Amino acid sequence: MQQTIILVAGGRGTRMNSALPKQFITIGGMPVILHTLLNFHSYSTDFDFIIALPDDLFADFEQMAERHCPQIIFRLSSGGQTRFHTVKNALSLIKSPGLVAVHDAVRPLVSHPVIDRCFAVAAREGAAIPVMEVNESLRWISPEGHTPLDRSRCRLVQTPQVFRSDILLKAYQQEYNELFTDDSSVAEAAGFPVSLVEGNRENIKITTPGDLALAEFYLKMK
Amino acid sequence: MQQTIILVAGGRGTRMNSALPKQFITIGGMPVILHTLLNFHSYSTDFDFIIALPDDLFADFEQMAERHCPQIIFRLSSGGQTRFHTVKNALSLIKSPGLVAVHDAVRPLVSHPVIDRCFAVAAREGAAIPVMEVNESLRWISPEGHTPLDRSRCRLVQTPQVFRSDILLKAYQQEYNELFTDDSSVAEAAGFPVSLVEGNRENIKITTPGDLALAEFYLKMK
Repeated sequence: MQQTIILVAGGRGTRMNSALPKQFITIGGMPVILHTLLNFHSYSTDFDFIIALPDDLFADFEQMAERHCPQIIFRLSSGGQTRFHTVKNALSLIKSPGLVAVHDAVRPLVSHPVIDRCFAVAAREGAAIPVMEVNESLRWISPEGHTPLDRSRCRLVQTPQVFRSDILLKAYQQEYNELFTDDSSVAEAAGFPVSLVEGNRENIKITTPGDLALAEFYLKMK
Repeated sequence: MQQTIILVAGGRGTRMNSALPKQFITIGGMPVILHTLLNFHSYSTDFDFIIALPDDLFADFEQMAERHCPQIIFRLSSGGQTRFHTVKNALSLIKSPGLVAVHDAVRPLVSHPVIDRCFAVAAREGAAIPVMEVNESLRWISPEGHTPLDRSRCRLVQTPQVFRSDILLKAYQQEYNELFTDDSSVAEAAGFPVSLVEGNRENIKITTPGDLALAEFYLKMK
């Protein structure tokens, strides 16, 4: 069965205090997005990769990939106006049924057991996403004020979010809605249930210089 | 007006993979709890400090403080069975009216503007706590299943949580309830409203080796 990884790098990070797009920030001399690509490639050399990037970064990306991981075959797809549009564009490149993982390009540290769980549960149930418990107290803001939120009932959502391709293709035929913050919300809005699996704490989304320092630490530990 | 800082270090961290209690883990050769103490002391030399610790760590703490910051005067208070009991013990040492900040000993990186905001708003409104927006997607688990949670309406709660002393002393006369996860929830349960002020991203709670690495990075940046 075909297994596709869509690496979503459609946006332009503005919190990194850098002229470089955030997905091209380097750790140990290699761009974050290539750490992510190599992490999946080391899990399975059978994955099909689609890299979703702004068009004007295509040439830069190809050069970097040629330099750091010429062995990996990938296709490029144009980033859209929102994450929804970026993923929708990438899905149009998928021609045969299988499983599709949508993953944030700036999460190089997803563990292989988490990739494993997401694919296994998605194959069986249709859709699976990794989540983590929340370690800090939370509050809920409402028009009437704010109240404590029971953190034991909250989960932080990570990626890869993995789906049977027929489900994800169908879900992305919906009109865009600004409540679509991730792929699971798109799938659910189309009536498809999503299973939760356990993520890993190190699987952070790198969006600030602090995140980058933490990712460097975790990569050294590996 | 008297301003008291209660540093809460009642628990024993088990996630740090270390035989040392988490509040004694060092950064740059000095225990985290002393980084926290010095941070508040550098904001104002007028603070009264109460350090809430398990009894059997009193002697160790006094030695470390004597070595790293002999200029700071503090009182020690016994840690209780829960955070609630630890704070309640510490409050019994407060004899004159004023403002009381309850702060996690393992948050050495609260910024001075945040301390400023918390005290200013608590002086005016009675109670203030620092909060941050959530950067990741969230889900809500219910008996019926799980649904996306609107993260724009959620806030992560930090410390210091600052109160007029009469409010906090009154609130802590309540019976213990396991829904009391922080001081603001205790105050609210007693009918006192709590104001939210903006926290700072670096103000992390150090509970894992990754947190420690991130805190080291932030301390170097300062």
